Amino acid sequence: MLSSRIGILGGGQLGLMLLQAAVDWNLDIHVLDPDAEAPCRQIAPHFQQGSLQDYDTVYNFGKDLDVITIEIEKVNVNALEALEKEGKKIFPQPSVIRQIQDKRVQKQFYKENNLPTADFILTENREDVYKNASFLPAFHKLGKDGYDGRGVQRLTSEADIEKAFEQPGLLEKAVPFEKELAVIVARNVKGEITTFPTVEMVFHPELNLVEYLFAPAEIEKSVEERAQEIAKQTAEAFQIVGLLAVELFMTADGEILINEVAPRPHNSGHHTIRANATSQYEQHWRAILDLPLGSTHAYGPSAMVNLLGEEGYEGPAIYEGMEKLLATEQVFPFLYWKAITKSFRKMGHITIMDADIASLKRKVDFVKQNIRVISK
Amino acid sequence: MLSSRIGILGGGQLGLMLLQAAVDWNLDIHVLDPDAEAPCRQIAPHFQQGSLQDYDTVYNFGKDLDVITIEIEKVNVNALEALEKEGKKIFPQPSVIRQIQDKRVQKQFYKENNLPTADFILTENREDVYKNASFLPAFHKLGKDGYDGRGVQRLTSEADIEKAFEQPGLLEKAVPFEKELAVIVARNVKGEITTFPTVEMVFHPELNLVEYLFAPAEIEKSVEERAQEIAKQTAEAFQIVGLLAVELFMTADGEILINEVAPRPHNSGHHTIRANATSQYEQHWRAILDLPLGSTHAYGPSAMVNLLGEEGYEGPAIYEGMEKLLATEQVFPFLYWKAITKSFRKMGHITIMDADIASLKRKVDFVKQNIRVISK
Repeated sequence: MLSSRIGILGGGQLGLMLLQAAVDWNLDIHVLDPDAEAPCRQIAPHFQQGSLQDYDTVYNFGKDLDVITIEIEKVNVNALEALEKEGKKIFPQPSVIRQIQDKRVQKQFYKENNLPTADFILTENREDVYKNASFLPAFHKLGKDGYDGRGVQRLTSEADIEKAFEQPGLLEKAVPFEKELAVIVARNVKGEITTFPTVEMVFHPELNLVEYLFAPAEIEKSVEERAQEIAKQTAEAFQIVGLLAVELFMTADGEILINEVAPRPHNSGHHTIRANATSQYEQHWRAILDLPLGSTHAYGPSAMVNLLGEEGYEGPAIYEGMEKLLATEQVFPFLYWKAITKSFRKMGHITIMDADIASLKRKVDFVKQNIRVISK
Repeated sequence: MLSSRIGILGGGQLGLMLLQAAVDWNLDIHVLDPDAEAPCRQIAPHFQQGSLQDYDTVYNFGKDLDVITIEIEKVNVNALEALEKEGKKIFPQPSVIRQIQDKRVQKQFYKENNLPTADFILTENREDVYKNASFLPAFHKLGKDGYDGRGVQRLTSEADIEKAFEQPGLLEKAVPFEKELAVIVARNVKGEITTFPTVEMVFHPELNLVEYLFAPAEIEKSVEERAQEIAKQTAEAFQIVGLLAVELFMTADGEILINEVAPRPHNSGHHTIRANATSQYEQHWRAILDLPLGSTHAYGPSAMVNLLGEEGYEGPAIYEGMEKLLATEQVFPFLYWKAITKSFRKMGHITIMDADIASLKRKVDFVKQNIRVISK
């Protein structure tokens, strides 16, 4: 399987890191992305510009390949299904992508499979939200096409409903959680499963984006075991081949609820490139190329800070403070080949390692205070 | 310095690994290699086919760049000196490359700088070797252009001299060594120095090639300190900016002698990609881009096995046994994008990690027995 012709739909930073993990095995990777300046363009052995949502483009991209995967869910699933029928190996499976693309289907899937998740009500339009005003306070989520904070809003009381989405969505009870956790699961072609240690995510106060995370999460052993178990059950329920990133809420009494999942490498696993024997990216290749899964052994505690474009700057990116970071032991900046910065654009991340947790946390603060992505 | 236009002379496996280390920082790398199918071609942002030994080719390649480095010593140094005069940053410095290119100059340099090395006699031709027959048994080395076992032979007695080189070379006393060690030193623009932990190399019984190595070396602490000290002194003596790989002999009574040096990343440092906080490749970029040097902290004991083309096979490479390797914890194969295998061609390497030394050694044996590069 190492000699397969492999396609990735999407050439963003997740695709870039998939590519990097593929270099050691000399994998023959072809990347499709609508942006001629996508992060992958610089090092992809084969790069093609084109829409991920156009049937013909995706079909034609895939028809001469053996294995196709994704780094973003928003792709033309019909084209992938047609390719699958012709015998191409498409992982994650198109049926799984379709389920996960729609948050409404995703939530019902948890319910049907007895997977713990916050209570919810499906809504067809704004009118429907008004009818269910008694369910508030709740999160109102678009069924499809939400991404990085777009398509999710909190509705506290009836007065907020005027801003509710007109499109099909859902209302989800706001869980009074204490922590947000994530577990990345890999399931290979043979059905073998491994998980990475549970991570604890700290979200940006305004944006629905991970600001930084710690691995492993500082949680009770029983909670860790429960989180791992639920993540595995979720991957089993989907019968996914590839990675499944499972985002979880932990309540004050240690209950674990599934927030949402992503069938691909995930922001909550970037640190595994440096901190674990097998990275999430290599694990994805192993899973979809019918190889044995690798050890997820962590070399020590780690943290990951997302590097977002500084608010109010737009233009050619300047990375202020890189030298300070590079002068600090085991601080690993990772930039995404994005020429242009914008407010809060994901421009890179920084992995930080330290055997001592207190020192690790000091380094996280140091990193957050000392690097900025600005423009002239 | 991270925005410099950077050139690498040579696009082989060392260049490939330099490139990989450059991706995280989005370095703008240009590669020159005579082979259109060189390992670097697949992922280099800019790749140019051309001779490394032709003055005009090297000069023209470098004239629009800011920083130029090498992954092989056999380059046109005159062109690099001309570029240096124009203000380009050339690291390692052309003067250092020139000294190291010629083993005769290298040996005299050790002597002049009181650096320990085996006794030697310079020879101009075969006739000169005959004159010094009483110095045998000795290694007879070509001054220039030796590489991977070519240009070195053992002369045991006068009868062997008929095969001695006609070109300028040297006779070096065969050291009755117990171990062969290597220390990779990095010295940056500011003159700061770091070393990687000393490794122990085991050579192929017939070829002058590392078969496998262990890190750290199993040696007395005092020997380790002496090896590190000599390596640092050597880098200081050359005033090199960049990496210097120092190969050493350890005699039965723990004496350390310099065998030879390479002013670039080295086969004896491949394992640092996986086993150390900073790899030799990243350290080279730090050194030559006027950045602080990184931590050389090792996450645990490691080994590296060179993957050579199986004797008697020539043609499109097939990697037999990859799946077995990938099923073993912390075994990391690394292939060099070489389409064609030949007897003993360096096709890749395998890094192996294990907290337990006995288990590490078992894995080395397992790897050696279970992977072969053959052809149909």
